[in-house]
Parts: sequence; C-alpha cells; structure tokens
Amino acid sequence: MVDEETYKASTYAPVNIAVIKYWGKRDTKLNLPTNSSLSVTLSQDDLRTHTTASCSSTVEKDSLTLNGKDQDVSGARTQACLRELRRLRKDVEEKDGSAPKLSELKLKIVSENNFPTAAGLASSAAGFAALVRAIADLYQLPATPTELSRIARQGSGSACRSLFGGYVAWQQGDKEDGSDSLAYEVAPASHWPEMRAVILVASAEKKDVSSTAGMQQTVATSALFKHRAENVVPGRMKAMEAAIHDRDFAAFAQLTTRDSNNFHACCADTDPPIFYMNDTSRAAVRMCEAINAAAGNVVCAYTFDAGPNAVVYYLAEHEKEVAGTFKALLGEKTGWEGKRGGAVEAVKKLPEGMEVAAELLSSGVSRIIPTGVGDGPRKTEEHLC
Amino acid sequence: MVDEETYKASTYAPVNIAVIKYWGKRDTKLNLPTNSSLSVTLSQDDLRTHTTASCSSTVEKDSLTLNGKDQDVSGARTQACLRELRRLRKDVEEKDGSAPKLSELKLKIVSENNFPTAAGLASSAAGFAALVRAIADLYQLPATPTELSRIARQGSGSACRSLFGGYVAWQQGDKEDGSDSLAYEVAPASHWPEMRAVILVASAEKKDVSSTAGMQQTVATSALFKHRAENVVPGRMKAMEAAIHDRDFAAFAQLTTRDSNNFHACCADTDPPIFYMNDTSRAAVRMCEAINAAAGNVVCAYTFDAGPNAVVYYLAEHEKEVAGTFKALLGEKTGWEGKRGGAVEAVKKLPEGMEVAAELLSSGVSRIIPTGVGDGPRKTEEHLC
Repeated sequence: MVDEETYKASTYAPVNIAVIKYWGKRDTKLNLPTNSSLSVTLSQDDLRTHTTASCSSTVEKDSLTLNGKDQDVSGARTQACLRELRRLRKDVEEKDGSAPKLSELKLKIVSENNFPTAAGLASSAAGFAALVRAIADLYQLPATPTELSRIARQGSGSACRSLFGGYVAWQQGDKEDGSDSLAYEVAPASHWPEMRAVILVASAEKKDVSSTAGMQQTVATSALFKHRAENVVPGRMKAMEAAIHDRDFAAFAQLTTRDSNNFHACCADTDPPIFYMNDTSRAAVRMCEAINAAAGNVVCAYTFDAGPNAVVYYLAEHEKEVAGTFKALLGEKTGWEGKRGGAVEAVKKLPEGMEVAAELLSSGVSRIIPTGVGDGPRKTEEHLC
Repeated sequence: MVDEETYKASTYAPVNIAVIKYWGKRDTKLNLPTNSSLSVTLSQDDLRTHTTASCSSTVEKDSLTLNGKDQDVSGARTQACLRELRRLRKDVEEKDGSAPKLSELKLKIVSENNFPTAAGLASSAAGFAALVRAIADLYQLPATPTELSRIARQGSGSACRSLFGGYVAWQQGDKEDGSDSLAYEVAPASHWPEMRAVILVASAEKKDVSSTAGMQQTVATSALFKHRAENVVPGRMKAMEAAIHDRDFAAFAQLTTRDSNNFHACCADTDPPIFYMNDTSRAAVRMCEAINAAAGNVVCAYTFDAGPNAVVYYLAEHEKEVAGTFKALLGEKTGWEGKRGGAVEAVKKLPEGMEVAAELLSSGVSRIIPTGVGDGPRKTEEHLC
C-alpha cells in the first residue's frame, strides 16, 4: 500500500561540449557508439537544465514538460531510462521493506533550460542527464554517476557525459548489451579550473542550407568514417587524456581543433554530404587562427558540434587575447552583459588582414555565451512542481 | 648554321575538370601524384587556351605572354617543359641532319584564354597543355600525346590530362623518375558525346574566407588523406573507367559527387583546414540533390575543384531538367547568351522547398558557362605572333 505523500527531488545538470567527437552508433537501440569521446562540462551558472521529478499516488500517468511544453514520454529512449530507473528502485524496495513503493507510481517530470533553445545548443545531453539524476535522487538510488551514465546514454548518447563535471570520457565499450559503454571522470573541474569557453551562437536568420542526413548515414556511406573511428580516434583519446592530465593547453587545442575538423570532414564525406559549418563558422576558424598567430602561441581552440555555432576554448590567462578579440568584434551582441562577459576586456587592436572574417562574424553571429569548465549535476531544493 | 626564317606553330588546348580528383604529390619537383585521377575534357568552343610558339635566330630570349601580359619563364616548372622539349627536338635534329637546329633557338610563346581569368577556373592545365603541344608541333616531334603528357605534367600536374579529348585518366605510376606517370585516353569524346556540363561561377565579390594552405599540407597533416589515396581512389578509378565504358550515368554521377566530397573532406581535415566550398557551393549541392529527387532519377552530378565554382555534369537528354533549372534560377546572369546557352529551355517549375538554396545561388553566382565534353588539342593556322 502506497501512501499519498508526494515525493520529489530536483537537480541542475550541465551542458557538455565534446573535444573528441561522438559520431556514429554501432547499436542504434542502445546508443552504443562506434568510438569513444571526451568532453568538457560547462558551468551551470551559464548553461543548465533544471529538472524536478516527483511522484505520488495521485499522479495518473508519466509526464514530462520542458519550458512549459508537454513532451512525449512514450518514445523508446525516454521509456528505456524510466524502465531502468524503476528497476533499480525496485531493488531498493526489495532490500528494504520499509521503503515506499515509488517504483509503482507514475512520474511527473518538469524541466527548464536557462538558455535559449533557439541557440541550437545540444540541450538533449543536459536534459537526459537531469532527468536521470533527478529520478535517481527521488528514488534514493545508491548508483554512482558512472552507473547512471549507462542509463542516461540510452536517452541521448552524449547525456552520459553530463553526469560528471570537469573533463569527462565516454568509453565506447565492447559488450553487446552496452553494460561497459559508460562515462567516467578524466579529471574534475578543480584539476584545470582555468579552462574557459566563449560560444559564438550563429544567427538563425542567416540563410543556410540544412542537412537532413544524420550520423548513421555517415556510418553507412562515408569512405573515411571507419578509418576515423578505428584508427584516428583511439590515439586521440589517449593523447587528450594525457593533455588534460598535464594541463597542456597546446596539445589540448591541437587535438580539439583537429578532431572537430576530422568529424566535419566525415560529415562532408557522407552521401548525401552533411554540412553543419557555414561561412560564419569558417570565419570563426580563421579568426581563431589569427588570434593564435597574433599571440605567437596557441591560446585558443575551436570546436563545432552538429551545427554552425563555434565553441572557442581558452585559458583564463588569455582571456583578453581570445574573448577580448571577440568582444571587440561582436561587442554589440547579446551575451556580454552578465558578470562573466562584463569582466572581459575588449582588445584595442584586432588581428590584421581579418576584415572579411570580421564582417562575416558580425553579420552571422547572433549572441555570445561566455562560460567555462564547471562541475557535475547539483542537487537543489528549488522544485519546479 | 641556323637560317633566319621564323618558325611557328599554334594550337588550342582544352580545360579538363576531374571527376576523380588529383590532390597530393609524392614528389613535388616532378609533380608525381599520390593517386591516379580521371577527368572530362571540356569543349574548346567554350573554354580554351590558344597558344603560338615561334622561334627564329632573331629572338633573343625565351618569353611567354598570357593575355598580353609577360609571364615569368624562369620557374622550374616552365624550364622543365622547355628543357624536355628541346631535348626531344635535338633527337630529331641528330637523326635528320637536314632538320633546322630549332633546339638552339630561343622561343617566343604567346597565349590567350577565351574565358575570364577571374572565373577561378584552373587555367594552368589548358595553359601548359597548349604550351607543350604548340612547341611539340613547332619542333615536329614524333611524340604521342601520352609522351607529351609526361612533359606537361611537370608544368602543372593536371595539364597532362588536357592533351587528350574525351575521358582521360592520369595514372600515378610508381617509378621514381616519373616516366610512368602519364595520361591516357579512357574513351574519346565520340564514345559518350552526350555529356554536358554547366559551370556555376561563384561571385568574386561574395565575401569568403580564403585558404592559404595547399595540397602538401593535406599530405602532411590530414589523418584521412592517406586512406583516401591508398584505399579509396584505386577502386573508384576502376569503377569510373567501367562507368564511362558502359556509359552508365548513374554510376558516373555517384562516383563523381562522392569523390568531390571525399576530396573536400580531406581538405577540411587538413591542419589548418582548407575550405574551398562556401555557402553558395553548398546551395549548388542541395539544388543538384533536389533536381535528382524531382526527376526521380540521377540526372546530374556536381563536382568542385579547388574553389567554390560548381561544375554540374548531365546528359543532353536531361538538359531541361538540369541546365533548365539553373536557367530558371539564374537566367539573368552572364553566360546564357551563346548558342549553347540560348538553346537551354528554362523549366517552369522549380524544385520544391529550395527557396533558401535558390536565394544563395542567386546572390552568390556571377556567371554561367554551359559546355560539354570535347576533343583534344587542335592545331590551328591562326597565329598570335
């Protein structure tokens, strides 16, 4: 007999941006990837999903709202997460007869993102990480973040990496049931807290041709992709872990830019070709090259996910050269007004010969998000329902 | 003793556009490629270099003018061509004591292109092919086009393919001295005369970021390029020869688009990345996909060289669906006014849902060149000096 009390738990979960990219599944049902990947978790002060999971005997069906809009919970991915979490709760209930039978109750889940969905940032990672973390807290599961990452991965592959802060790897694993396809912490944010990022959000109004094909089309048709997955990424994963361990920004930057370019190369080699980067994105690439050239040193690294937004990583000590250049170029855009953006000092002298790239950025970027490495999901008593 | 007569010979030489791309050298001095390539020679009625080679005892130094402007002939590439041609002439003179000693005279070479140099078409291929062919005719060399291709290759790699009409392969060869790195005719234009092409010349005014790195940077830094050269291209060369032999346009088209995309993927994977295609180029890709989708059949194939211009191949029977779509979209641009362009009938109905691509093409394309497969260099009595 379940009592009529309402149980609830709330969490914040962060966005992560990969520096070794996930692209391609070897099992589409279980979201098992063709290669390992590695990401930096970004600060929840800047980008986060806030989720409350609640249950009581008065809730009649599982539901999920995001930013006030009802979401479909019947999809296989969401269902897989709910099923696995309830199974773990059942284990708790079976071991402790006094534990309320929450596994038998319907769930009401309410989520909110603190960033514009139109920004084209991969919000599904933070979303599924928050959903899994909030329900795990509601159910008082003894599971570790790595164990939960196995569940979140089934919701959205890269969500598994948002269960940790700092520098996070997702090992592809090789078991058929996916039980070893998990995320683990390479290093906490405190190991290398100076990592910053400025995100250049590409204007949605800017005319662009879209790509309808996705990652499995790359797996099926690219003549280069298998070589990337099997021969290129494994060495880069090791090198990236070492770069993070050694806090070697030059190595981190070279691996980050090369892997982003390698990923987009495989997209371009897909039939039909997938284009995520546009002329604005390429202008951001050239501007980063010019910033590094002007500094006489590798002070920034760009990466692009499945969209035209540039994410530019740099260290706090080079804030003026990097973020300060973008502030000088794009100072009138939304996003500099917060504490973090306000502290950025615009450079007085722009890199030479970059007029065309500057013009393309000015017309193609709609907003800026200054951020940096951050911690993992945070429990909160601020409930959304 | 050389007489004071002036000897001269003139030729037209065609442009060729590769369908299996040449990118990467294994020997930069001899222009030996890392992979074989294959091209279609385009009609000289539309695109050609016209060159006159002359010599007499009154000419004091080797000289070359292109479109009225003096060119440097001291470069290693031009010198290699002149040296090799003079050596072959010397063989002729040694065998036939009555042959005038032209190998001892200085050369005056005058060239003109019938297409705008600003169009960004690879004019060096036609240029070196015309130079080699005109001097070979002047010297009355018994050399075959394949033998001459070995010489033209040292001027500009892809020039070796412009010594033939129709469908032309450049076999990479494996000898260190390059003696087996030659062009040969896969099929004459008459084998498959229905092949047409419409070139969309990207506007030079359109803002774009440039690439400073070249093919050897790809060889040195791309993690994918070696796989392309060693594992992807060889199979495609065989398949493309078979497609041409069988006049199988669907196979020709798939190989052409995939190889263009594969080449640009390797450019994007270069460090720093090389971007030749811009938003206009990608709009052309999407428009070709839409044309094929609307036709319910593969009626066109795009390819891009080291620049943003699209070359769209199609067969004469599909002129209306393909060229007619571009005429409907871009009818006001320069280039339709000739006999070939005038004959193209614009379609009344554009592919659906392509408004963004249409707008990008309209603002990004400056002129059109309608053309088709054509024959090899033509001797002419029209001398330029």
